[in-house]
Amino acid sequence: MNDTKTTLKKIDLSYQALPGSRKAYRKGKLFPNIRVPFREVSHNVNQILKLYDTSGPYTDPSITLNITSGLPKIQANWDLRNADIEPIKDTQLNRKIFKAKSEKNITQLHYAKKGIITPEMEFVALREGFDSKFVCDEIAAGRAFIPANINHPENEPMIIGRAFLTKINANIGNSAVSSSVCEEVEKMIWATRWGADTVMDLSTGKDIHETREWIIRNSPVPIGTVPIYQALEKAGGKAENLTWETYRETLIEQAQQGVDYFTIHAGVLLKNVPLSAKRLTGIVSRGGATMSKWCVIHNKENFLYTHFDDICEILKQYDVGISLGDGLRPGSIADANDEAQFTELKVLGDLVRRCWKHEVQAIIEGPGHIPMNLIKENMDKEIELCHGAPFYTLGPLTTDIAPGYDHITSAIGAAMIGWYGTAMLCYVTPKEHLGLPVKKDVKDGIMAYKIAAHAADLAKGHKGAKAWDDAISSARYNFRWEDHFRLSLDPETAKKFHDETLPDAKAKKDQFCSMCGPDFCSMRLTRDLNSLNEKNKKDA
Amino acid sequence: MNDTKTTLKKIDLSYQALPGSRKAYRKGKLFPNIRVPFREVSHNVNQILKLYDTSGPYTDPSITLNITSGLPKIQANWDLRNADIEPIKDTQLNRKIFKAKSEKNITQLHYAKKGIITPEMEFVALREGFDSKFVCDEIAAGRAFIPANINHPENEPMIIGRAFLTKINANIGNSAVSSSVCEEVEKMIWATRWGADTVMDLSTGKDIHETREWIIRNSPVPIGTVPIYQALEKAGGKAENLTWETYRETLIEQAQQGVDYFTIHAGVLLKNVPLSAKRLTGIVSRGGATMSKWCVIHNKENFLYTHFDDICEILKQYDVGISLGDGLRPGSIADANDEAQFTELKVLGDLVRRCWKHEVQAIIEGPGHIPMNLIKENMDKEIELCHGAPFYTLGPLTTDIAPGYDHITSAIGAAMIGWYGTAMLCYVTPKEHLGLPVKKDVKDGIMAYKIAAHAADLAKGHKGAKAWDDAISSARYNFRWEDHFRLSLDPETAKKFHDETLPDAKAKKDQFCSMCGPDFCSMRLTRDLNSLNEKNKKDA
Repeated sequence: MNDTKTTLKKIDLSYQALPGSRKAYRKGKLFPNIRVPFREVSHNVNQILKLYDTSGPYTDPSITLNITSGLPKIQANWDLRNADIEPIKDTQLNRKIFKAKSEKNITQLHYAKKGIITPEMEFVALREGFDSKFVCDEIAAGRAFIPANINHPENEPMIIGRAFLTKINANIGNSAVSSSVCEEVEKMIWATRWGADTVMDLSTGKDIHETREWIIRNSPVPIGTVPIYQALEKAGGKAENLTWETYRETLIEQAQQGVDYFTIHAGVLLKNVPLSAKRLTGIVSRGGATMSKWCVIHNKENFLYTHFDDICEILKQYDVGISLGDGLRPGSIADANDEAQFTELKVLGDLVRRCWKHEVQAIIEGPGHIPMNLIKENMDKEIELCHGAPFYTLGPLTTDIAPGYDHITSAIGAAMIGWYGTAMLCYVTPKEHLGLPVKKDVKDGIMAYKIAAHAADLAKGHKGAKAWDDAISSARYNFRWEDHFRLSLDPETAKKFHDETLPDAKAKKDQFCSMCGPDFCSMRLTRDLNSLNEKNKKDA
Repeated sequence: MNDTKTTLKKIDLSYQALPGSRKAYRKGKLFPNIRVPFREVSHNVNQILKLYDTSGPYTDPSITLNITSGLPKIQANWDLRNADIEPIKDTQLNRKIFKAKSEKNITQLHYAKKGIITPEMEFVALREGFDSKFVCDEIAAGRAFIPANINHPENEPMIIGRAFLTKINANIGNSAVSSSVCEEVEKMIWATRWGADTVMDLSTGKDIHETREWIIRNSPVPIGTVPIYQALEKAGGKAENLTWETYRETLIEQAQQGVDYFTIHAGVLLKNVPLSAKRLTGIVSRGGATMSKWCVIHNKENFLYTHFDDICEILKQYDVGISLGDGLRPGSIADANDEAQFTELKVLGDLVRRCWKHEVQAIIEGPGHIPMNLIKENMDKEIELCHGAPFYTLGPLTTDIAPGYDHITSAIGAAMIGWYGTAMLCYVTPKEHLGLPVKKDVKDGIMAYKIAAHAADLAKGHKGAKAWDDAISSARYNFRWEDHFRLSLDPETAKKFHDETLPDAKAKKDQFCSMCGPDFCSMRLTRDLNSLNEKNKKDA
């Protein structure tokens, strides 16, 4: 642990806000203690564009950061749930942890159903420009989810639901053959800097508990995990040795650390496993394959399914949400929209109702690999079979032929399914199918998915989305190069690319760019044209 | 010229076929002299996948290349049009050039309407796995286009039409502020290596004629240009000084060099120019802005429109096709699908009929910047207003916020519009809006567009498309790592990414990868599962 602390202290925290942006906050009205962060960009002399900001305190120069003590515990100051929780003694964790008082339910869904607006609800309402009441109603209906474990007080609340901005998740985590605690914490900070709305720690290698601890303590966004990975590790890597007891203990361990949502592959049923045998690529979900093997070896029903109510009982004490894993998702174009996939989706639809009975928040995971013409059916079936619960998809990849470019093959599918109504898109990096992503891959994946999510928001007509496009297009058209860079999704890359051809500082004031040069600049020509039109009008 | 030759000789021609691929040919039946190239990949011991191959002789080690004498003139050996053409004397070009004998029409459309199958038609039929008669019918109906100027005998014929594989175009060309002849020839070779089906030379800088000459002589794919760029150069860069005579002379010059298709902005009409004044970003097409300015300054109708029949008369002598430019395409999300855009599209629909009257082949250019929800309307209107002529779109970009990543913002739109029926997708590189693309940008743009085009082919159900996905997915599932790399769209990158985490040669035989490690490999688990299922069956 001390060795880890020493290396953690070496993580570069000198990042400032993105070039040309600054951190701004909006205060709560119902809850004056909450401060909702934004990326603020000044442009066109005195206009200000407020953009959604996932980067947390790392881009606020007024906050002193110390990675070994973690981020400020903002939630501790304002959570109305504080009255309904109590500290518990824990031997593993070196700090106060909480759970619901007995007979209390502390999930956002519980409060929403009572019509109580929580600080988390006001936070996300201000963050997205909606009314708090509307947020509360969407949660109450099961159509939206605020991941907010009471043991993750460093978290800046966000919401996952079709009516809201499309969110993206970034997967990080080590494997048995690669990576360290420190690298994973760095990837998490890096991912949130570029726009990850949630981060899933999928570690399966060594130091699984410690890696997660440092990630959560330093994460301004909700953290998700797949607890079966750690349970499998505890079972010596052998699926057949998994037990409900080990799994249960793992759930509690992670819930107390502060994980905000768990992927649980409870929809893989013994009788449905053989459906995957007809496939070109069988089962490609790690959790799905593990549970299938367990079911077949023991010839027993999946213990995640048989113990599903027990799981909900545990999770609601911390307000951990459930992401119902699609263990039988297709792993290739050939297997898209097949019987195995949709049979499981129906089971997930039944399970989400069981979550709601416990007032446990839930979302539904989706594929995978799907050709464009079959994407919409996925969304339609999800809404129908899963009663409107938020959909959370991996891509989907729209072709299998381009390993090394799967951030692009999947951004196409992600944008489309986001437009059709998927609430959160799990990114895919260029390394998918080839290796564990490093920092560069994480950023490449996030950029592709921020694009997909924003394109989806434009297409579905999210009221706040288009202002960003209009601001940057106006800057482009009027040769305000510096505004053009700072309004970019990635100001660093935009400026770097411009510099590659025209490095001279003077070029930033030029009325053209290197693509066309001055005489062939259409925008310059059009401006001449508009002057001509004006002149003609006056002359007439 | 001699200086250029010296530097041209330095271009690296040592490229071999892509790793694990080899060049193969299929011979013609009607025309035994034609040899249709393929990229052949052996996999799974004795299976062979034949992939479409745009790379020309550069990937055939049996052909000796000499850049200063150009590629072998394959068309000279088999073109049935040879009987209908005659050499003409030309002072500018140092070689034999041809045009149609007087009273002869030598366009593919002319022969198709007579029901005559040309070698070009058989070539593309074999290339795509269609019947020659079907190809002939599609061309006769105006729904497909084979760009094949008789003065570009180095060209390997390809077809652009909704019924065929979705094609991509790569733009290259210098500007007044950047690049050299040599760099542009290199970019062309590089672009065809990675899959460009046609290349447009959009040079606007110096040595415009010479750059084009070297590109055409060394290009195995059709070359397109926008002749107004060179005409504007001749007019001293001033739109108002353009004349029909200069333009006409430029058309002839380029047609005789062997350009296969011209973008012509004849749809920009004087009365429609003011429609662009309401826009956020006015006119963003260089040709459109130039002609608009000319119209307004002279208060006269666009000479490309008034001389449209003259243009067709010139072009049909060489079989140069027309790409009807969308001079008023939207340059931002705000301007998508507006009155200016669709008013022009209707004019283009009228013009395409005039092309067909002359038996000149034609395609229609499309946008630009369009949010996903408005893309389909573009395709529907194009089919309706342009009578089924092939659509050729730039992207479209689905959001404006990501300069530096516009290969991705636009690959999303390109894939979708390709699925809806667009025949050719003009690539966008990461440098779009920022600078002139260098080789790396060209490849990045092409990769994104090969993905978009293939995803479109899968979605529209092109009969040959899915075999590739199935082959690579099967290799992936069965841990045939070497097959997985060689079947990739980009075998070099796929292998490089795998090496980054597991550089050991032994890892290429591993039954897992670095993402999950051995115990968490879903594919390995599934194989165990299948063995178990088999065993259970036997035991039963």
